[in-house]
Amino acid sequence: MASSFFSDFADFAAQAATTGFPALAQQRALDGITDCVGCIAAGRREPLAGKLLRALPGRAFEGSIDAETAVMAFSDRAALPTDAAIFNGALAHAIDFDDSSHPAYAHTSAVLVPTLLSASAMARVSGTDAINAYIVGLEMFGKLARGMNNRHYENGWHATSTFGTIAAAAAAAMLLRLPAAQIAGALNLATSFASGLRAHFGTMTKPLHAGIAARNGIQAAMLAREDFGCASAALDHPYGFATVFNWGPDKADLGAMGKPGEALEILTDYGLSLKAFPSCGATHPGIEAATKVHRWLAGRKPRRVRIGVPELSFRPLIHHSPKTPLEGKFSLEFCVAAGLLDGQVRIDTFTQARVSSPDIVGLIARTTMEVDERVRFDPEWATAVRVETEDGAMHEELVPLAIGKVGRWFSENELRTKFLDCCRGVLADDRADGLFRTLRDLPSLDSLATLQRQLHVASRQAEARDTASVAA
Amino acid sequence: MASSFFSDFADFAAQAATTGFPALAQQRALDGITDCVGCIAAGRREPLAGKLLRALPGRAFEGSIDAETAVMAFSDRAALPTDAAIFNGALAHAIDFDDSSHPAYAHTSAVLVPTLLSASAMARVSGTDAINAYIVGLEMFGKLARGMNNRHYENGWHATSTFGTIAAAAAAAMLLRLPAAQIAGALNLATSFASGLRAHFGTMTKPLHAGIAARNGIQAAMLAREDFGCASAALDHPYGFATVFNWGPDKADLGAMGKPGEALEILTDYGLSLKAFPSCGATHPGIEAATKVHRWLAGRKPRRVRIGVPELSFRPLIHHSPKTPLEGKFSLEFCVAAGLLDGQVRIDTFTQARVSSPDIVGLIARTTMEVDERVRFDPEWATAVRVETEDGAMHEELVPLAIGKVGRWFSENELRTKFLDCCRGVLADDRADGLFRTLRDLPSLDSLATLQRQLHVASRQAEARDTASVAA
Repeated sequence: MASSFFSDFADFAAQAATTGFPALAQQRALDGITDCVGCIAAGRREPLAGKLLRALPGRAFEGSIDAETAVMAFSDRAALPTDAAIFNGALAHAIDFDDSSHPAYAHTSAVLVPTLLSASAMARVSGTDAINAYIVGLEMFGKLARGMNNRHYENGWHATSTFGTIAAAAAAAMLLRLPAAQIAGALNLATSFASGLRAHFGTMTKPLHAGIAARNGIQAAMLAREDFGCASAALDHPYGFATVFNWGPDKADLGAMGKPGEALEILTDYGLSLKAFPSCGATHPGIEAATKVHRWLAGRKPRRVRIGVPELSFRPLIHHSPKTPLEGKFSLEFCVAAGLLDGQVRIDTFTQARVSSPDIVGLIARTTMEVDERVRFDPEWATAVRVETEDGAMHEELVPLAIGKVGRWFSENELRTKFLDCCRGVLADDRADGLFRTLRDLPSLDSLATLQRQLHVASRQAEARDTASVAA
Repeated sequence: MASSFFSDFADFAAQAATTGFPALAQQRALDGITDCVGCIAAGRREPLAGKLLRALPGRAFEGSIDAETAVMAFSDRAALPTDAAIFNGALAHAIDFDDSSHPAYAHTSAVLVPTLLSASAMARVSGTDAINAYIVGLEMFGKLARGMNNRHYENGWHATSTFGTIAAAAAAAMLLRLPAAQIAGALNLATSFASGLRAHFGTMTKPLHAGIAARNGIQAAMLAREDFGCASAALDHPYGFATVFNWGPDKADLGAMGKPGEALEILTDYGLSLKAFPSCGATHPGIEAATKVHRWLAGRKPRRVRIGVPELSFRPLIHHSPKTPLEGKFSLEFCVAAGLLDGQVRIDTFTQARVSSPDIVGLIARTTMEVDERVRFDPEWATAVRVETEDGAMHEELVPLAIGKVGRWFSENELRTKFLDCCRGVLADDRADGLFRTLRDLPSLDSLATLQRQLHVASRQAEARDTASVAA
């Protein structure tokens, strides 16, 4: 019965805290958590990090984790768990390199990992606890989405933030070891904290949404622990979450949400997708095809490039002659050109210098992007890249599914390479490697405090950047 | 032009910080602020206060107000300005005794006064600064409502919280002395913090909304001060506030919002209404009529009571035989019976003992509530109370407009009497009187720190109640 979804979910979460999940689910969760910490490091270099450090009340981190202290990652500062969650969440999603989940069309780890970190300052949280809570949070994202998407997204909401608030509440309530009745309270309370508009896409406020969701979910759990009064059916009330956030012709279908834990979201084909490149997901198969063509080129010069895509690709990939790094992230022509010329697309690909460089600009001018009949209706951005060289040769690569999707999950080496790339400029390589190893050992950690201490490490580079930004 | 409303508003707010407002507007604002501080005291006795003190991170108040310390009112604790705003806001609206504003249909001071108090911990705020910011915040409530109500309310949103977030951002940005461009940033950012569902009406989460709005508005202003990136037209963007929060057949009409400061909301007939009784506004004329009949009774015993009301009154006043104090607040029969028998309706009227007492229950059984042709379409709950006594006499009083509306504004004595009643059990009478005098002197205060210190005073009663609540 739809009206008891939050209660059923609370029972599911309370039970999962002790019984746990299948090994494959745990492994994917561990990979998602590891990858997200790398993304937080990458976000540390972005201008939003310094702004948040100045806007959020923080203090020097004394090296001890307690109920009032969570670390602001990759800095020497600590804050209340609620404020640290805002910071860590915004960093995680700052360059859009973090994972996502369908059907929520939301960035899930960017909300959940900061929630785990902050909750661990309020209760003893082991690595296994964290993994279980992560899987539960992802489950809430997916199940809400099955009942409410895509209408929810079409209505203008950023699901990372709206669904994320409720997902974070579930994870936090579980980590605070609340009984099922209080977990349900946290879910109900969270509905009145949910916010976040798509109007802010393309600005710092988009990644901020991930942090806000984590903060709000934690706060809902803290209130539920005190039996703070709230509606008992805030999902399905006539003025509840499902109705108010799905106003319009396609109403929410609570029956479509199914039972929590059945068809566990993290085990579905698109329940969790890691990103191999720091650009729009729709560019990923094209980038991989381009790097394969690069290897074939082996020094030959490309004369003309033809990119064949599904119809769908023209929706997000709107920048055909990008002028800025951010536009470059939504330009298939730029991403393919970089893949062809450089053999790789990494964080440093998206600089003003590279976007403006003559070899890139010249190649984009000789590139055509068009619908390819072979993939016209493909929902996963399958892309073909064909190149004619100046010496008259021709080669094509077609990539049907991006690396990082469940069907092509990251290898340990791919995970590590991306992680170290993300940490560059924030942590010295040996420290980054140590952090990676701690994360891979997460299931054996008695307490996340070990991880927190490594996250606290200040980097000279990051601090110097903050100082420059203050002076500017 | 509608698309620049937030920019126009930011200019208006920046200018108001220096030029101020007419004397009548300032006097109403001062009365609203004074009355709200009384309501915060009344809320201090409610169970939600103890729960929030335990759920929000707080610490002993050291007696100094600084950038990281705002008081949690009527306690010995301090917190970050953001967390203190949640506490003070929830208390202000806890028993629904605080003022409201049409056309927003929102509790305005419960959001704005905590915002003033918390902002004063981050910047030097004089009494005059506070009054100007209050008027600006009220202006935002009203103008948003003119464009978006009643559809916004019908969509399930609690405007106290949604409009309140943006109104608090305006007030906070002004008090932090941000230039107009950053005030506009705060308004735009605030759209992605706005939340709060009507599903939670009738629970502690409803008053919590006022605190959340104050907290969120302050946070938006703190981010705007750092030029945190956000959409520049988050009100009128296709996925902006006006559209997403007014989905449906009656879209937002931005043109109807008019110009900020023109027809200043606080000077309109229903721009600010104080409450003389701690019950649903629809009961107020009936209560006053009953107390007048009480004086006429002079000891005679009522046999039958007839209450004549507008059609509209049957919408909120749904409890005809109330069983609990909260139901009593939405029962005209109970409120009138108490007015007739006791000669007054005060906070202590709404106890379980009084709701269940035989004289009240017996009189309610002999009471009829029906539409009265004289007031059938009255929008202000005009109410007639007619009594037949056991000795065969009959008397009727008809009250067309409640005390506390602009047309029947509180006298200084009425304001003081309510204030002292609100403080009873929280502050000793002489301290309550001292606080009242400080508030009335607000325009001459160089800094709100004086007021903050008086608000900090712990009361033995309140602390004892918290302890009992923890033990329970």
